[in-house]
Amino acid sequence: MIQRPRGTRDFLPEEMERRRHYEQILRQVACSHGFREVSTPIFENTELFTAKSGPNIVEEIYSFEDKGGREIALRPEVTASVIRMFINEMTSAPRPLKLFYFGQCFRYERPQSGRYREFYQFGAEIIGAPNAETDAEAIALAAAMVEALGLREYDLKVGHIGILRGQLAELGVPADAAGEILQKLDKKLYDEAAPLLRSHGVQEDGIESVFATTQVAGGKELLSEIGGEPGRYLNELFRFLDAYGIDDVAIDLGTVRGLDYYTGVVFEVEAPCLGAEKQVCGGGSYTLSEVFGGEPVFSTGFAIGFDRILLALEREEHAFDGKKLDAYVLPTGEETREESFRIAARLRREGLSVDVDLMRRKMSKAMKQAAATGARFAVIVGSKDLAEGAVTIRDMDSGEQSLVPLEGLAKALSA
Amino acid sequence: MIQRPRGTRDFLPEEMERRRHYEQILRQVACSHGFREVSTPIFENTELFTAKSGPNIVEEIYSFEDKGGREIALRPEVTASVIRMFINEMTSAPRPLKLFYFGQCFRYERPQSGRYREFYQFGAEIIGAPNAETDAEAIALAAAMVEALGLREYDLKVGHIGILRGQLAELGVPADAAGEILQKLDKKLYDEAAPLLRSHGVQEDGIESVFATTQVAGGKELLSEIGGEPGRYLNELFRFLDAYGIDDVAIDLGTVRGLDYYTGVVFEVEAPCLGAEKQVCGGGSYTLSEVFGGEPVFSTGFAIGFDRILLALEREEHAFDGKKLDAYVLPTGEETREESFRIAARLRREGLSVDVDLMRRKMSKAMKQAAATGARFAVIVGSKDLAEGAVTIRDMDSGEQSLVPLEGLAKALSA
Repeated sequence: MIQRPRGTRDFLPEEMERRRHYEQILRQVACSHGFREVSTPIFENTELFTAKSGPNIVEEIYSFEDKGGREIALRPEVTASVIRMFINEMTSAPRPLKLFYFGQCFRYERPQSGRYREFYQFGAEIIGAPNAETDAEAIALAAAMVEALGLREYDLKVGHIGILRGQLAELGVPADAAGEILQKLDKKLYDEAAPLLRSHGVQEDGIESVFATTQVAGGKELLSEIGGEPGRYLNELFRFLDAYGIDDVAIDLGTVRGLDYYTGVVFEVEAPCLGAEKQVCGGGSYTLSEVFGGEPVFSTGFAIGFDRILLALEREEHAFDGKKLDAYVLPTGEETREESFRIAARLRREGLSVDVDLMRRKMSKAMKQAAATGARFAVIVGSKDLAEGAVTIRDMDSGEQSLVPLEGLAKALSA
Repeated sequence: MIQRPRGTRDFLPEEMERRRHYEQILRQVACSHGFREVSTPIFENTELFTAKSGPNIVEEIYSFEDKGGREIALRPEVTASVIRMFINEMTSAPRPLKLFYFGQCFRYERPQSGRYREFYQFGAEIIGAPNAETDAEAIALAAAMVEALGLREYDLKVGHIGILRGQLAELGVPADAAGEILQKLDKKLYDEAAPLLRSHGVQEDGIESVFATTQVAGGKELLSEIGGEPGRYLNELFRFLDAYGIDDVAIDLGTVRGLDYYTGVVFEVEAPCLGAEKQVCGGGSYTLSEVFGGEPVFSTGFAIGFDRILLALEREEHAFDGKKLDAYVLPTGEETREESFRIAARLRREGLSVDVDLMRRKMSKAMKQAAATGARFAVIVGSKDLAEGAVTIRDMDSGEQSLVPLEGLAKALSA
């Protein structure tokens, strides 16, 4: 029996309905914030991702040569594609551009709980507005999405990558060496960060002060302690967040996000119910377009791990009731079979969701199938009733049956 | 500047909104017919597609070896995946299963007008109901979808693959040689079909009678002329189609669909406005599950070429008006900037779609941006108005302005 590829999933109807429900919530919230949806290809030229993340990314992605000898890769994330699209096609659009996307991404890694080789991301980017209110707008959207999904327990953490970058520069670490160190610090791998810092001539007290910065975490009271341009920017950001009504925000200078193109504010949303893999959203401000051959443009954005946030909702035991079928139409026998299709077709045209017996089942079995579909009503089409211009409807919850004239049927089923 | 791969597309906001609109119409129609959505991976083990369509399919698809040495391929269509999912996970579900899907498919071919390397299909499958009403249900869904999209001019053609298969068998053509001949006949390549028929010993009058069959096309009056089991089946099918209210159906025995697993009824929808590439939907009944290692199960389904049917709607000049932003909030100056965010946030929480100035523009420029976003209203936040607990709203169509108290703002903007 042929199986699906490892690390991928099939979504059966129940699960798919739940996913579309939550996807639609995210889409509505994004639109209510003035963001507009875009879509880019599932695969890109591999150089898009190596330009952004370095040549080693190839080890972690699905990259391959197409039949024309071009190196292409299944996208591991969508921000790179959105920025490519921006520089290809949207540089003359009024700014800021507020864009969002939803779709599959791919990574080649060992499949494990909550991590798949094909996974889904919902993300947003604001392109071309270099102000603190832009970061506030992105954070406000992320928070509104998490709220709208109904996640009860979550932590929103904000940091500023400029603080550690500035500290490293002051200690004499060259800018192009900072990325590797920041990646270690992001994962709190101090044992691996220390020798790197030493190799650039940083003394022990310098190393300690860098490590201390990554431990700075707390509430708004910390704002007054952060100096320099990053401190001024964060203070401004928090004033705007306050205006947005977002007050439960932690400051965490250990929130780093190790990639070179992050420039300023960084933020994450965590769902504690997920344990070690608790990050459900991550983002920040960046300049990426010049890496792909465009002009430098201030951007800020984030991505929500759709699979992971759905897992968090599941852990919190969020009830989801799918839409029920309005009616299942079944004939009492051969002589009313065609008429039952006529009735089903009419009800569908009137906007009801209706299924109909395709198996020529006897009535008792067809009634079982009606129950299996979860329909609210069974519509029983019998020749005696039909002669009076009526059918019998059965409320599948209560078992109650009543005779309904055909012209009032749609209304009776909508009740 | 890095470009997107050849044959792929970016969908910018206008186009994407239009696509989501039509996608949602198709989804609603499918649900109203008791179909439920499923989703399968973007890539499958390559053998799934070679088992279905033969080894030559590899020439036309994106197939590659993953890092673990497995042959995988970007799906060229979704029916194979749905049937694989069925035999993997759904064989014990109550039958029939009525499933639909929407998503990207991929083929490696020279890009040309209306044909892309990444394209979108919306499709449906009914699994496990071996009756004429099942085919009727599939055709009814396809017709309802095309109607709901609003396509004005289209042709629905029905054939029965059993007629030509039976004729070829009678003339002594072995079953495993019929596929190639049928593919030629599907494309009306009589010059190429004739030598194949001769190579299996078919005489000239036999060849002529086969060719004549592929020319049989007309209205329901032909039903009485088609004999044997296919004739009986088609008569039954047309009775059910009539019950569904579908009467504008042509019979076309040249509608073949060359693949081996098609077993009976085949059908197509064509949009004449598209010229040579006019087929927008194709389907029929088939048994495929046994090819993948499952039990044989009667199935019937179809796929709509989403890109192509959207192109047809465009050719017919269907108007599509996207949803407008309700309001664009802008401060008259620095002193009301934060308050304008407070107001935007409140309106969004009340369910309105609202954008806000992130660029610290002067009022006249911000008003231009408000117009560029297409918002219905501009909300002008000035300190004098605010002192009275009010803001000024401007109807962006009429230019009319009025002072509105803050507590009545959401209502005034919803009007």
